[in-house]
Amino acid sequence: MAQPTSAAGKTAITPRRDEDFPEWYQQVIRAAEMAEASDVRGSMVIRPWGYGIWENMQRQLDAKFKATGHRNAYFPLFIPLGYFAKEAEHVEGFAKECAVVTHTRLEINAEGKMVPGSPLTEPLVVRPTSETIIGASYAKWVQSYRDLPILLNQWCNIVRWEMRPRIFLRTTEFLWQEGHTVHETEAEAREETRRMLDVYEEFARDHVALPVFHGEKSESERFPGAVQTLCIEAMVQDRKAIQAGTSHFLGQNFSRASGIQFQTRDGKQEFGWTTSWGMTTRMIGTLIMTHADDDGLVLPPRIAPTHVVIIPITPKEETRAAVLEAADKLAAQLRAQSYAGAPIEVDVDRRDVGGGVKSWEWIKKGVPIRVEIGPRDLESGSVAVSRRDQPVKTKEFLKTEEFVRQAAGLLVAIQQNLLARATEFRDANTRTIDSKDDFYAFFTPKNSAKPEIHGGFALTHWDGSRGVEEQIKNDLKVTIRCIPFDDPANPPEPGTCPFTGNPSARRVIWAKAY
Amino acid sequence: MAQPTSAAGKTAITPRRDEDFPEWYQQVIRAAEMAEASDVRGSMVIRPWGYGIWENMQRQLDAKFKATGHRNAYFPLFIPLGYFAKEAEHVEGFAKECAVVTHTRLEINAEGKMVPGSPLTEPLVVRPTSETIIGASYAKWVQSYRDLPILLNQWCNIVRWEMRPRIFLRTTEFLWQEGHTVHETEAEAREETRRMLDVYEEFARDHVALPVFHGEKSESERFPGAVQTLCIEAMVQDRKAIQAGTSHFLGQNFSRASGIQFQTRDGKQEFGWTTSWGMTTRMIGTLIMTHADDDGLVLPPRIAPTHVVIIPITPKEETRAAVLEAADKLAAQLRAQSYAGAPIEVDVDRRDVGGGVKSWEWIKKGVPIRVEIGPRDLESGSVAVSRRDQPVKTKEFLKTEEFVRQAAGLLVAIQQNLLARATEFRDANTRTIDSKDDFYAFFTPKNSAKPEIHGGFALTHWDGSRGVEEQIKNDLKVTIRCIPFDDPANPPEPGTCPFTGNPSARRVIWAKAY
Repeated sequence: MAQPTSAAGKTAITPRRDEDFPEWYQQVIRAAEMAEASDVRGSMVIRPWGYGIWENMQRQLDAKFKATGHRNAYFPLFIPLGYFAKEAEHVEGFAKECAVVTHTRLEINAEGKMVPGSPLTEPLVVRPTSETIIGASYAKWVQSYRDLPILLNQWCNIVRWEMRPRIFLRTTEFLWQEGHTVHETEAEAREETRRMLDVYEEFARDHVALPVFHGEKSESERFPGAVQTLCIEAMVQDRKAIQAGTSHFLGQNFSRASGIQFQTRDGKQEFGWTTSWGMTTRMIGTLIMTHADDDGLVLPPRIAPTHVVIIPITPKEETRAAVLEAADKLAAQLRAQSYAGAPIEVDVDRRDVGGGVKSWEWIKKGVPIRVEIGPRDLESGSVAVSRRDQPVKTKEFLKTEEFVRQAAGLLVAIQQNLLARATEFRDANTRTIDSKDDFYAFFTPKNSAKPEIHGGFALTHWDGSRGVEEQIKNDLKVTIRCIPFDDPANPPEPGTCPFTGNPSARRVIWAKAY
Repeated sequence: MAQPTSAAGKTAITPRRDEDFPEWYQQVIRAAEMAEASDVRGSMVIRPWGYGIWENMQRQLDAKFKATGHRNAYFPLFIPLGYFAKEAEHVEGFAKECAVVTHTRLEINAEGKMVPGSPLTEPLVVRPTSETIIGASYAKWVQSYRDLPILLNQWCNIVRWEMRPRIFLRTTEFLWQEGHTVHETEAEAREETRRMLDVYEEFARDHVALPVFHGEKSESERFPGAVQTLCIEAMVQDRKAIQAGTSHFLGQNFSRASGIQFQTRDGKQEFGWTTSWGMTTRMIGTLIMTHADDDGLVLPPRIAPTHVVIIPITPKEETRAAVLEAADKLAAQLRAQSYAGAPIEVDVDRRDVGGGVKSWEWIKKGVPIRVEIGPRDLESGSVAVSRRDQPVKTKEFLKTEEFVRQAAGLLVAIQQNLLARATEFRDANTRTIDSKDDFYAFFTPKNSAKPEIHGGFALTHWDGSRGVEEQIKNDLKVTIRCIPFDDPANPPEPGTCPFTGNPSARRVIWAKAY
């Protein structure tokens, strides 16, 4: 695992990452009170701490969408079955995961039991994605090239029935944004597809401190109905990949299905060129699996609901009032400081419980900076400062004014450190591999009790055939995460596919994935 | 109607308010490109201009929730039928409006038709409100009085099957927020119920420029399962009432149904005291019906997506660049001004269409201030300023610097004027009535072709009986909108119910309602 465990043996989260990674993940979420499973199979309850992180992600990503010319709108939750079935690959891709509304009331049956009442003539699909329902509106709105581009986004809930749910990463209901655009030309639509992938990459890197690889999906991993799917892929601490955002060039497939047609500049009728792109609450799961440690969540300051928590230490009743007053004063001073364009978010934990209990709660919640202030600190005019990206017992005593002056800079440093740490981990676990044997060895756990201890990401040549992908998926549960883009400054080197001996245009990135 | 039509005969919206109010409402929405009906019966598409208004409402109301100690969370869309049925009055109240998910996949049947696939063992109700599903979580979270209060809110979509949909006012799917709180004592829960009603009233008045009456619902209009429902009621321009926000004291009804139980300070087990409160996209419909005029939407500046639109007038190619440059400079100067705690929102309409066409589009969208700037204005250093709350042909020529200095003040003045105008209209159409004949005459349209020309709000005594309410609802489609609160400074005067001759403790507010 990337980070060392905090103390000798004793950690706040049981089990540790190296003991049972999947269970550790669940326990981090529980200890931070971020979310929990609900009694509705596969659906989660997002608790305030988890939702506060989502609100920050939403606000910051939304600002980037608006800065790139997009506006928000809202389209219906329900999609008539007939609409949904218009694009053949699309419906095939989602048919197995659809929740279907068939009735519109409840009534008491002859046995006195409450049952669904009036059947609908056409069933409704609860949106698993909105290309088809949004396409129906766009077909009405677009008449001429003058109506283009259409650049909209919506924030909403999505339902895809999950047989093996995992909180944040794979839930029957999740929250996301979905951008849907229509363009006059193929080139503009392709440019938009790439622009929004860049927005995701920048958001992942600069806000969530996630270094990601970007590229194109192979055909077998493409969005159902898309011509091209671009993606960003993160590596988490069990060395598996998580797809953290996708941007699809849909060609004219969906505009043909929905009838999005326009009069061109030279008076002809043409179908619009469309794109769609999305990022989901899965980003929260990616964040946890990347940054959390054996003492709980570790939050990148940019998306932390609270940047600094002040913990008043009040052992004696006679100094209590003075300590609380000093804590409030410090909070006000910090709130007057700006971090990432807004005031520093400060919480003073006034609860009447022991300082140690409080500290551990905030450690598990991953707050970037903890500050303890007690009666002796009042006398010395100093505070004890702990950074969540350092071992939990580490404290630095700083003069109060000095800490206030440094606070925003400390947050910047923590953000940078988390990104640097994750990048180092990813790079240390990404290997260029040239033989089939090495590839199979890289992805085969040395110890069957610890299946997470495999290699990581492999950069390996591939002849482009689906057969190779399928074989490797069957053998190792490893897939192509992405085909890197052409970089003119650093063009791909052709080589030989180690699985078939056929020529290969470039290396692609392989990994086990969530 | 409240405001005079703009010009002699010719208006931007056809029909006018006094010709056909319901159709005028639809046309205002269409002309402003706020929303439209979708092919999913009863569901609407909220277009960017409408959604921008909702985003502003959401952000501003959310800040008030946070300032009163609430945090946001997210609970599942689907409610197991068994949960939903736990509170008897509740399920009875919503059973007729529920959308029910019965299947979780689509498959091709023997005839080659796509149909719902795997049936669920327990059907799921798409949330029409979330008391029962949130209650299931609260039952787990609450053990002791130390866990209280719980003060959460969620922003989400809601489904209530509508037989007679009307865009924004009554749609099968709508957006809202729902607050759900649990308290240790009845008094605290009642205090919270009232506090949140006050938040809604303040939001309606200070942000949406809606004067509202507040009070308690009679038993027949209460939320299904509540002990008490408080509400705010607005009067729109056809003199009907719209319920614009509700806050419910739920007693221990839902905590009993969900098992929200806690250990009290003296070691006993007690059920929690709960509240819920909500405001919906219906607020946008209320805004339109209150403020819009025969030329389209009129937006209160506080919730307008754009405060000032600058329309460059560029008749000649040779002055075009200079005019656009001046427009951009003015925009930058305005954006440096602060209104209601944030920069003034400015749009420069650079499209290559005539100034008149542009002006009318922004009039119909209700932007508070329009500024025209043309070649001659450059020479004189002035701009032509129009306020949307004044007749559309009115223009004031102001020196550019003077306008920049005044802009925020103008927005404040427009906001105040809209509130004053709506208050005046409401008060002019609110009557104290003491006889049954006068009451029936007040609510009987003089002209059957114009059913909207009835009295308005009547303040009339009532003996408290359900029979009187039912009779009047049957005869006139008039209901009790609210029972005003006791105001110790101005205590209610007892009197006689004009319908029965029985004693009455106070006057209540009667009206036709949406």
